[in-house]
Amino acid sequence: MDGNTERASTSRATRIVVVGYGNVGRGVLRAAERNGDVEVAVILSRSPERARSEVEHIPVRPLDDVDALREADVAVLCGGSKNDLPVQGPEFAALTHTVDSYDNHSEVMAYCSRMDEVAKEAGTVALISTGWDPGTFSMERVLANAFLPGTATYGFYGQSQRGGLSMGHSDAIRTLEGVRDARQYTHAIPEAIEAVRAGENPDLSPGEMHWRECFVVAEDGADRDAIAEGIKTMPGYFAPYRTEVHFVTQEELDARHSGFPHDGLVIACGTTGDGNRALIEYRSAWDSNPEATASILVAHARAVHRLAGEGRSGAFTIYDVPPAYLSPHSREHLIEHFL
Amino acid sequence: MDGNTERASTSRATRIVVVGYGNVGRGVLRAAERNGDVEVAVILSRSPERARSEVEHIPVRPLDDVDALREADVAVLCGGSKNDLPVQGPEFAALTHTVDSYDNHSEVMAYCSRMDEVAKEAGTVALISTGWDPGTFSMERVLANAFLPGTATYGFYGQSQRGGLSMGHSDAIRTLEGVRDARQYTHAIPEAIEAVRAGENPDLSPGEMHWRECFVVAEDGADRDAIAEGIKTMPGYFAPYRTEVHFVTQEELDARHSGFPHDGLVIACGTTGDGNRALIEYRSAWDSNPEATASILVAHARAVHRLAGEGRSGAFTIYDVPPAYLSPHSREHLIEHFL
Repeated sequence: MDGNTERASTSRATRIVVVGYGNVGRGVLRAAERNGDVEVAVILSRSPERARSEVEHIPVRPLDDVDALREADVAVLCGGSKNDLPVQGPEFAALTHTVDSYDNHSEVMAYCSRMDEVAKEAGTVALISTGWDPGTFSMERVLANAFLPGTATYGFYGQSQRGGLSMGHSDAIRTLEGVRDARQYTHAIPEAIEAVRAGENPDLSPGEMHWRECFVVAEDGADRDAIAEGIKTMPGYFAPYRTEVHFVTQEELDARHSGFPHDGLVIACGTTGDGNRALIEYRSAWDSNPEATASILVAHARAVHRLAGEGRSGAFTIYDVPPAYLSPHSREHLIEHFL
Repeated sequence: MDGNTERASTSRATRIVVVGYGNVGRGVLRAAERNGDVEVAVILSRSPERARSEVEHIPVRPLDDVDALREADVAVLCGGSKNDLPVQGPEFAALTHTVDSYDNHSEVMAYCSRMDEVAKEAGTVALISTGWDPGTFSMERVLANAFLPGTATYGFYGQSQRGGLSMGHSDAIRTLEGVRDARQYTHAIPEAIEAVRAGENPDLSPGEMHWRECFVVAEDGADRDAIAEGIKTMPGYFAPYRTEVHFVTQEELDARHSGFPHDGLVIACGTTGDGNRALIEYRSAWDSNPEATASILVAHARAVHRLAGEGRSGAFTIYDVPPAYLSPHSREHLIEHFL
């Protein structure tokens, strides 16, 4: 494990297999095109025919065709955290090196332990829970806390005018009777951001940091007042927040709310020395949330390839990866041009 | 090098020796107080009597008392990049593990090679060029470039109203005839920031990104017009920029411009997929620039201690350090509370 001068450059491209061809999987294909040293070898999909109708030049195989993994260095797991990854994560980690964007916070320690166990047994690298949050935001929280000990780190979402589209909250609205379709945007409350920037390290309840805006298509004849009330009082999802509900037509929803915009902000504001103010902020804003996750997954696939090349094994997070491993450039290039 | 579950927690405190007791050295003492797992064992100073008059409870020894290094794990080199570090870096790296904030960009590759050679020979870890820039900003440039390949990363300084105090430019003004004292603030040009945020990836000359504001104390009877002209036409430092010169009294300079405020912003604005906008920004703002550098140096001293504990050796940069190594918390704590 010596020779840090050489270790951050790989000798050849990283060949990936894309597991799951939904919005994130599509994003991984597009991100790989922009990375000269990453090639998509094969796509595994539950609906190979549908994927084949969209993709040329890349073979598509059924999800259980694990022989396909031999053609690649790293499996990029693009399934969801609720149903897919708890099963697929350990299954694939037992067979090859993996990277995923597992984001179920309450279960992440258990998922990490399970992946670590499977990956150590198989001698594979399993990099879990990366993307922008969890992922880069997690790393920024750790760094801000390390540089400004004792300072709280805050996360705000939907600082942009449009807000951040939450699929989880959109799905929750769709479970209500009389709702045909819905989109939910999370909005940060600017006064809360300013209080944090002012160095007050305030105690903020969820409802003091964000409000929620819902665009709902009701079924014909549905009771709109009951739907609005049902949304606003939904425990956990909406009850703690100020919530606005707008009823729109399906055409309007499709025309104006078909994208996946999201953005977020990490802030830590503390002091150094005798009360000298110190502020650290990290912000990212994305027209396409799944493409954002995909872009970060692809950089981590490169890192997984490098860690695997060193004979490492077990579960890793973004905390465990030297930043140089994420870059397509050699360490010399980074020192010369980015330091 | 396996066992990534355990590797990010150290069993005991990191004992440091502070080499050089100027503004950064003072900041390291204050930062160490805020880190429960970092202890200052000894200070080495060119002027031990002066340092002793300021510091209680910590022994102060002459700069060449290298026996003192035995009492610590890591030497935090707080000297300047121009005269101190090119000599002290290799000298100390030959004797113990080191961390420094070397920031002479045009010489950094040569410095890195020299430190790598000395540290490998001595079996020590030499972490170079960390702080906020170079340091965290360098890392953010690399990450933004890895997540948004082909996108330019821009650095702006002095975005805050006050601007960022540049010691190098202040010193340059003081070399002019008739100047008794001076401070220079760098200001970012907001329109340039907005052009970058708009995704234009513009070609910006230095003078399109920043302007410079100088507060100058003239000697009695000095030719102020000649001084102002001398500043504005100084090659490299001021000639490429719009520059404002204000003449003030020494009292005014001391009262209103005695601090070391600085701030900066890294921006990358590109696209994902079919032209979906993607923006990444990292900002930090500091009332005390040397205390900022010191706070980041102390977190890196912890990382050096951990790398050394693994038997690593050679020159490292922030690119080579897993973020978990910078944190006082265990990896489990980070996954549970920060992921």
